[in-house]
Formats: sequence, structure tokens, C-alpha cells
Amino acid sequence: MNNFIFQNPVKIIFGRGQTAQISAEIPKGARLMITCGGGSIRKNGVYDEVTAALKGVDYIEFWGIEPNPSYETLMKAVEVARGERVDFLLAVGGGSVVDGTKFISVAIPFEGDPWDMIKRKIKPTAAVPLGCVLTLPATGSEMNGGAVITRRKTKEKLALHSPLIFPRFSVLDPQHTYSLPPKQVANGIADAFIHVTEQYLTFPAQAAIQDRFAESILCALIEEGPKTLANPTDYDSRANLVWSATMALNGLIGCGVPQDWATHMIGHEMTAFFGLDHGQTLVIVLPGLLWVQRDSKRQKLIQYAKRVWNIDGGDEDALIKQAIDKTRTFFESLGLSTHLSELGVTEDIFETAITRFQSRNMLPMGDSKDLDADKIREILRLAR
Amino acid sequence: MNNFIFQNPVKIIFGRGQTAQISAEIPKGARLMITCGGGSIRKNGVYDEVTAALKGVDYIEFWGIEPNPSYETLMKAVEVARGERVDFLLAVGGGSVVDGTKFISVAIPFEGDPWDMIKRKIKPTAAVPLGCVLTLPATGSEMNGGAVITRRKTKEKLALHSPLIFPRFSVLDPQHTYSLPPKQVANGIADAFIHVTEQYLTFPAQAAIQDRFAESILCALIEEGPKTLANPTDYDSRANLVWSATMALNGLIGCGVPQDWATHMIGHEMTAFFGLDHGQTLVIVLPGLLWVQRDSKRQKLIQYAKRVWNIDGGDEDALIKQAIDKTRTFFESLGLSTHLSELGVTEDIFETAITRFQSRNMLPMGDSKDLDADKIREILRLAR
Repeated sequence: MNNFIFQNPVKIIFGRGQTAQISAEIPKGARLMITCGGGSIRKNGVYDEVTAALKGVDYIEFWGIEPNPSYETLMKAVEVARGERVDFLLAVGGGSVVDGTKFISVAIPFEGDPWDMIKRKIKPTAAVPLGCVLTLPATGSEMNGGAVITRRKTKEKLALHSPLIFPRFSVLDPQHTYSLPPKQVANGIADAFIHVTEQYLTFPAQAAIQDRFAESILCALIEEGPKTLANPTDYDSRANLVWSATMALNGLIGCGVPQDWATHMIGHEMTAFFGLDHGQTLVIVLPGLLWVQRDSKRQKLIQYAKRVWNIDGGDEDALIKQAIDKTRTFFESLGLSTHLSELGVTEDIFETAITRFQSRNMLPMGDSKDLDADKIREILRLAR
Repeated sequence: MNNFIFQNPVKIIFGRGQTAQISAEIPKGARLMITCGGGSIRKNGVYDEVTAALKGVDYIEFWGIEPNPSYETLMKAVEVARGERVDFLLAVGGGSVVDGTKFISVAIPFEGDPWDMIKRKIKPTAAVPLGCVLTLPATGSEMNGGAVITRRKTKEKLALHSPLIFPRFSVLDPQHTYSLPPKQVANGIADAFIHVTEQYLTFPAQAAIQDRFAESILCALIEEGPKTLANPTDYDSRANLVWSATMALNGLIGCGVPQDWATHMIGHEMTAFFGLDHGQTLVIVLPGLLWVQRDSKRQKLIQYAKRVWNIDGGDEDALIKQAIDKTRTFFESLGLSTHLSELGVTEDIFETAITRFQSRNMLPMGDSKDLDADKIREILRLAR
């Protein structure tokens, strides 16, 4: 096990009706800005629940944070927040709203162009505190210090990390997610699943708890994912999906183990150029990536086959192939496509992505630093 | 899944040589008191490592916090700390030193008799912050807001809970535990194991992640426990034990599920009256308790048999008996006794404990509130 530091101060307020508690979490006298997406929270009652809970609190609203939240939109929110002297933010929405609000929180006090915190990795030193009422189980943003922001003009989708952007609290009421379209639920299941594999399907680090916790989340998603898609208002299976997605990316399973994230890096390029849903892109990339990486990931892939899919015996490559096939079949059973061709992605993405990775000095990538341009080409060919 | 609130702000600094980082975690200009046990840290080098890391920091030392830390000893530390205007505490030792230091931290600013925070459940409202350098994997105290304190005069062993007593940071260097006697390691494995069963072997709450994480810790302890006893300086298996013990009682697996704690309540009485090691008492109580409770815990016991011990089929009671037998055999394989008679505990403890529980209105106890005096008698008879 590698040395590690772990600290996650987010207060999770989980369960039915917990939104009613939020005003106790916001400092008295705060000048609050609620940040929202396109309006689904008006239809499903979450907006009414939040505003009822905020009776007596002074707040303004910012609407229109889009999926894959854009620097362009977020800077408008920053301008409003600065003008209104906002000193607390409440993100009400899915991972995109939460990620976007995290960017707003460090951009408000930032001197200079806030994009530099992402592009030039200049560390934020101050932040307006934020809370969150989550409506979509997927990204884990509700309990971590990361955010992914897209710059439309340059078609860049890049990450920001800072302990300053941990939410102070996150309300996770599984009922808030009942009205999501099945495709978004499926994307969320896939996103959480692949957050786990990025931290688990690497090379062995003799980390028993981290491995078993990772396998726990994968097994829970395999078991509960189809149940909650079939019966979206079954509280327990939806609650299990919500908590799985949070646990998949709150730092815990990544303690002291190698991490990969190549599936995400390749997926981000497809979103940036073709606007594909994030979860969808991961599902396309992962099966091919695992096959191309079957040597460097061999031991963990065999462990995955045995412990997650309960398959054993036979030749190692056959076992690995079976585990990958089961993974792909699982994604397809959720209604997701695992082929680029079905989604209108053209093959020029192959060279476009590779050229970008090269220009950003990102190659070779992956946990074993052996994913070079040729291997990425091979992964993408397998995803055709 | 039940509603829950989870927040655990402890900064874990895990791994080889991490003690070197502590001075960065202690506020500049702090008036520090290091709290220690009986002196083992002088022999195993931990004391030297800590004091080397504290070069330039102003500190005093308090020695002599005993196993099952006593109110009587701790109040001496409180007196010293008040006199010296201590404003940061650093516990260097095992769970007893950490628990004792937590009590000291809230006792220093408490007006009145600090024992009232325990006996009369008066909530602490202020605390001197504390950090921890752990030397024994067992109690989980390094990452939670609980402490168990013994009052020698009245032979009472009781718990204190407060978010104020979360350590600000805990250094977990598995190497610090290499020199522990095998019996203490075995007790620690047992303690962590039974922290998990208290939160897992209850009645079903449809909490997929919590169940699987609990099973993960149990499996890790079953796999790594014997390895680390056989080879105490094998870094990875010791690191896995340390992280398992921390995860067993940091609040995570207890989120939104019923909890029991009857094994602990009964065990505490044996420690209070016969001075038995904490882990040792739990191991004596658990097998009988599970058998006596086999109806209310039936579904989880069957799940435990299947997922933790990989046994299946046959009549339910037979399956449960097999799982309990395997549990007992596991404890015995660690070198622990599972019978009262082998430890010189006389049977008058049966009625003494029951009378105490009755006088404290603790009966019936357990997750299903069905452990009455008769059942406790039966559990203790099974432990003879």
C-alpha cells in the first residue's frame, strides 16, 4: 500500500425529506446565491422544496448551468455573484451544476482570469463556501474536491482540484432523482462504475480494503442499477445507487493505490468534440481499453473476473475477455451504446484526440504509463 | 435504508515515516501537551520519532494513561494541562491513550465535574484540539468522535460521544505497530471485527454499500489477520490491518443501518470487574449472542454465512451454527480464548452485569430490543 493522506470534511445529509434541514447549514445573515440548471427542478418539486426550506434566508438565483458546464456560462454567474456580494452558494442540481458552482466559488475571489486555475494549474487560495442539493447520482461531485469544466470556444474539457471546493454539506434525497429520464440514470450508473474501475483496474498495490470497497461498489451497481431502472420509485434501490455513486469518487477507494483515468481523458475528448454524454463516452472507451491493457492490468482483471463477476478457471486471456464481455453486456443492458458508430462519432476523433494529448504532454497515459498514441488508436478502433 | 447524517473531518496521514509531517499540522505557537501510556513508545522508537518531528515546538509531556483509561488518571492530566495553559493535545499511543486524550480535551474547558459529560450525558461545548500518532490498530478512535472511559472507584466503563473530539489529524504508520505483543494484535483484530458485526449483524435495512463494506472489512481481517500475526513486520498485511481497524469504526458502515452494541455492553462489564482485555471480552460474548439472537438476526446471519464465510445450503439453523463456529474458530486461531472459565471469570458476573443493566434502564438491549435478562444469562452460560 502506498502512503496517502485522506481527508473529506463534507457533511452528508442523506434521506427522505432532508432538504428541510438546509437553512440550519447556511450561516445566519449569509447572502446566498442558488445555482441551477435548465429548469427540471421546477417540474419535479425540488425547487419548491428548497425555497420552502430557505424561508427567511436572503437569496438570489442563477439559472442555466448546462450539462458539461461551460466557462462562458459560469463567468456570467461569477459576475452576478460579485455584483451582489454573494457569500454562500447553494448548487441545486446534478453533477454539472455542482461542478459549475465549485468553479464559481473559487472564481469569485480570484484575481485575473479564473480559467488559469484550470489551464495553468494556478492554485485557488480562497473560495466562497458552497452547499449542494443533489438531483442526479453520477459524478460524486457532492462529496469531493474536484470539478470538470468545459471551455466552449476552445472545445476543452478539463479538471480543477482543490480542498477549497469540497461542499460544506450535501443533501442527498433519493426521491429527488425519481423523475430523471432512464438514459440519465443509466449514464449515472456507468459514470460511477467507471470512477471505480479507474481506481481499481490498475496494477496490484496490496490494498485489501480499497480493493474490496471498490468491488463492493461495482457489485452494488450491478445489482441495484437494473433494479432502479426498472422501478425508479423504489426507494431503497435508488438510495443504494445514490450512495454508490457518492462513494465511487470521494477519495476513499483511491487511498494508497495507483489510479488510471485514461478512460476519462479519452472520453472527455468525445464530449468536447461531439457533445456525447459523459457516462456514454466512458462506456464506449472502457471495454477496448481493458483489452488493450490486459498485460499491465492482468492481475487486477483476473481479480475483477473472480470477485465481481464470479467467473473463474480457464486460460487467463479467456477469463479476462469474459469479464470484459460481461462488463459490456452490463452497460448495454442499461440501454447504453458501446459503439462509436451508433452515436455518429466519426473516426477523425482518433487523430484529433491523440494530437491534443501529444500537445498537452499527456502521453503515455494510464496507471502504468504505457498508453501511447498507437494503443489509443487501437482502443478507439475496438470501439468502432 | 434509514436517513442519516455523516461527517468525518479527520485528516488521515497514512504510511511509512509520516510522523515527520506532524509539526505542520500543529498551529504555530501552540502550547502542546503530548499524552502517552506506560512507556512502550520509548522502547519502539516512536517517542524519538515524534520528538524529532516536534523540534521547535513548545511542549510538555503527560505519561501514564493506562489501558482502559481511568477518569482518576485523566483528571491528573487535566489539572496539569490547565495549569500549563495547554491549547493542543497530541496523543501518542493506542486506543486507550487516544480515548483518554479525547476526554482530557473536553474536560479542560468543562466547568463542573467532567464525569458528568459521561454519566449524566451533559454535552461538551468546547474542546482543546487534539492530534494523534497511533501505535495500535484496534479501536478506531483515531478516526471517530467517541471515547470509552473507566471510573475505577465505581467500576464503571462508559462512553463519551461528541463531534468535538474528532482528532484534527491522525498519523497511522503501520511500522509503529510492529513491536506489539501478538496478544495485543489479536485483541485488535477481534476488536475491529466486532465493531463491524455490531453494525452489520442486525436486521436487514437494504443498505447495499454498508453491508458490502462491512463484509469487506470482515474478509480483510480474516485474510490479513493471521498473516500479520505470523509475520509482524510484513508492511502490507500490517497496513491492511491498520486501515481495516480504522474503517471498522469511523461511522461509514453504520450510516443508515440499525446498530447493536450489546456485545460491547456485556463485554465492558467483564473488563470493569475482572480487568479483561477489551477485545478478549468481545470474543467471549459474540458467539453465544449470535446464537441466542439467531431469530432476530436470521437474515443477516445467513448473508454473513454466504458472503463472508462462503458457506451455503442446508437448513438455516445449521448454516448459522456453521458461521458462528467458523467465527469462534477464527478467534481461537488468533490465540484468543472464547470461554470465560479459561480466563478466571466467575459466574457471579452474570447477575452483577444484569443488575447493573437493569439499574441503568438498559434492558432490553440490542438492535431489536429483545435482549432481556434471561437472554443475557443464556449468552453468558454459552460462554462458560
